[in-house]
Amino acid sequence: MRLLGRVPAWQRRTDRFRHPAQVIASSFALAVATGTLMLSLPAATASGERADTVDALFTATSAVCVTGLVTVDTGSYWSGFGQAVILLLIQVGGLGIMTLATLLTVLLSRRLGLRARFLAQAETKSLDLTDVRGVVRRIVLFSLGCEAVVAAALTARFLVGYRESAGSAVYHGVFHAVSAFNNAGFSIHADSLTRYVDDPWVNLPVAAAVIVGGLGFPVVFELARHWRRPTRWSVMTRLTVALTVALLVAGTLALTAAEWSNDRTLGPLDAPGKLLAGFFASVMARTAGFNSVDIGALRPESLLATDILMFIGGGSAGTAGGIKVTTFGVLGFALWSEMRGETHVNVGHRRIPPSNQRQALAIALLGIGAVMTATLTLLAMTTHTLDQVLFEATSAFATVGLSTGITADLPQRAELLLIVLMFAGRIGPLTLASALALRERNRRFELPEERTIVG
Amino acid sequence: MRLLGRVPAWQRRTDRFRHPAQVIASSFALAVATGTLMLSLPAATASGERADTVDALFTATSAVCVTGLVTVDTGSYWSGFGQAVILLLIQVGGLGIMTLATLLTVLLSRRLGLRARFLAQAETKSLDLTDVRGVVRRIVLFSLGCEAVVAAALTARFLVGYRESAGSAVYHGVFHAVSAFNNAGFSIHADSLTRYVDDPWVNLPVAAAVIVGGLGFPVVFELARHWRRPTRWSVMTRLTVALTVALLVAGTLALTAAEWSNDRTLGPLDAPGKLLAGFFASVMARTAGFNSVDIGALRPESLLATDILMFIGGGSAGTAGGIKVTTFGVLGFALWSEMRGETHVNVGHRRIPPSNQRQALAIALLGIGAVMTATLTLLAMTTHTLDQVLFEATSAFATVGLSTGITADLPQRAELLLIVLMFAGRIGPLTLASALALRERNRRFELPEERTIVG
Ligand SMILES: [K+]
Ligand SMILES: [K+]
Repeated sequence: MRLLGRVPAWQRRTDRFRHPAQVIASSFALAVATGTLMLSLPAATASGERADTVDALFTATSAVCVTGLVTVDTGSYWSGFGQAVILLLIQVGGLGIMTLATLLTVLLSRRLGLRARFLAQAETKSLDLTDVRGVVRRIVLFSLGCEAVVAAALTARFLVGYRESAGSAVYHGVFHAVSAFNNAGFSIHADSLTRYVDDPWVNLPVAAAVIVGGLGFPVVFELARHWRRPTRWSVMTRLTVALTVALLVAGTLALTAAEWSNDRTLGPLDAPGKLLAGFFASVMARTAGFNSVDIGALRPESLLATDILMFIGGGSAGTAGGIKVTTFGVLGFALWSEMRGETHVNVGHRRIPPSNQRQALAIALLGIGAVMTATLTLLAMTTHTLDQVLFEATSAFATVGLSTGITADLPQRAELLLIVLMFAGRIGPLTLASALALRERNRRFELPEERTIVG
Repeated sequence: MRLLGRVPAWQRRTDRFRHPAQVIASSFALAVATGTLMLSLPAATASGERADTVDALFTATSAVCVTGLVTVDTGSYWSGFGQAVILLLIQVGGLGIMTLATLLTVLLSRRLGLRARFLAQAETKSLDLTDVRGVVRRIVLFSLGCEAVVAAALTARFLVGYRESAGSAVYHGVFHAVSAFNNAGFSIHADSLTRYVDDPWVNLPVAAAVIVGGLGFPVVFELARHWRRPTRWSVMTRLTVALTVALLVAGTLALTAAEWSNDRTLGPLDAPGKLLAGFFASVMARTAGFNSVDIGALRPESLLATDILMFIGGGSAGTAGGIKVTTFGVLGFALWSEMRGETHVNVGHRRIPPSNQRQALAIALLGIGAVMTATLTLLAMTTHTLDQVLFEATSAFATVGLSTGITADLPQRAELLLIVLMFAGRIGPLTLASALALRERNRRFELPEERTIVG
């Protein structure tokens, strides 16, 4: 079960096929490979010529990892078939991460031992731990249901507000709904959603899909059960809900204030329009990747604020990326406890075990390391500014997909670096968290402990 | 002893005069206030006019906190008296931090309890814990001794190599030696040490003073005693020596490679000159603040690499700034142990207690928070780029004193922000570490534990 370090050869061999971390990595690699092959078919491009292999690999990785960075314009470069492949890859990637992460939660609960399990079930009435097939079915139904509702809302708006033909409205509605719920950020339009910047009938359904998809299935499931009784929520749900609200409010205020008088972004809008666009930008930073204003025209303080939001990301076991709000929350509480001189880290009458804190630390440090290394390398490879390169690296690592516009101009080796970063950013925190948590030994029970997934 | 949180009023009142953290903060504030008053005298400026109060405050803070950022040119703006005040403030600040930090180490060892103390003494033959006056005397003698040797070397070089007059050579030699040993980075020359870029007889003594001063007194003391027996070194000494060497080598290689063909920095030099200048830049980033090439002309990847080196900083209980290599090392080992699946964090046959790991986490997180907040604020206050502003904020927080050249152009409220950042960066990690460590309760002994100061 070790990530690193010496393990006897026989154990390595048997572990290879059993460890969930490897199952996740190889499933995603398989999906990327299949996607690359399909996008390399001549029929996948609008011109009918075979796509460049790096472009196909980049697009497939970006779609499976629900990132949304693109080296070629989705709407004009790919054919209808190519776009369908991308949509399928997004759906597979989004469902895959949700399902695998939720099943890992189940697996982790099983390993907690009888007493903890009993307490956890009694306390939170969370997912039935034995019903794996039921869990998968619920996730699929929930995803498709949300996507259908948002697709219907968007289609109606495109029909009524923009007088699109029925076929076009449905296609645009479905594509953007799937892309939004899976936090993928792919758009048919080269300028993403900038044409709808002050249209709440497009912005709000997209934002709602992004937020719900980004909460993560375990949290949504628990919210659905105990909507009115927050005292029954698990630490994971409390942290996720509180931090989602806090980051959305803080992000909206910061971005709206910073861009208020920027003529190239919010400047031309009226006050409600500014607020809507600021809110939308704040939602998309975590980590959906659509944009309704030109990211390249943002002020540097807005770019850095967005970098921070992107790095933190969304909820665990959902379609959002980043180090996750739970990781951020556990570290924040650890810091707070330390400054108060408490020996234990408590979140709402529950003690976060030290091993859980160390996992959060590991995920955050490796994330900072990955983004810094990639930024340094990209700076050396290109002539772009730190603003642009840090944004691009953070966006790739946190699978956000926003860009200041440099993605298509990057040299091929920089694109390969981003591919690695997207893949590592998507499966890294999850596999790391599961590898670390599964390996952990049970020790003494002092207080009823409770685990929150970090990463 | 709490930093935050509710404490009975009587306890707050008595604690106010006893807590070492408050002693440190108020000593430094007093030194800054005295320095500001002296630099506000008309006699302190070359023109004979009263200096602007913010400039006086900025310079006094920069000197006491041994940072080296300046809003006015040290050599031309201040009179001989003003420069002497600055030199005195540097010496007071440098000796102050060394003495207070070393005494805190003593205080901490006392609190460890008899058994741990016995083990620590028997094991490491470290400082005699009862002899406070002796410790202070040794620190003063050691500092003045190092400064005298370096001043003599520099004076000889200025006399022989640059044909300066005796008075000028001695003055320049002493000023730069004191500034170097205290990691202050103040220079008489407006362009720092760029005129000596390829002169090893100036660069090497300055680099040696910076490195020795930045190791910290406890480490130097232990090295002097057990030079040939690294197995007897404490964790603090091992971490400090290993990481100092590793960061110097990595920094030299990275900066030399990145700037090799940059016509505005290393480009015009021959190969040994490039290596010397790269080495010098790497030493100065941690966290001395002299420069032999124009920082504003560095490539963006070099600036970011320097940011990282500056943030990590030098040794604890020395004149260097940053979060300190011990903090960085403890976090690195915690990450490594976590990835190997070990429940304890071991460094060279010693277990780092969890409370120690949490202190390192707190210091690093607060440091990242301070630099990010300051960078965001400075970006909003000015029109400078992220490159420049991140560098300036990191340089101020880590009390480095390097600058891309924007310090003097900043609006006054940005200068006030830098003053706060320098002060917090200088006393923050130390007081935080001591506040956290002193408050900690003794619990069970499992293995012989050993403490390394972080921050
Ligand atoms: K995305
Ligand atoms: K300095």
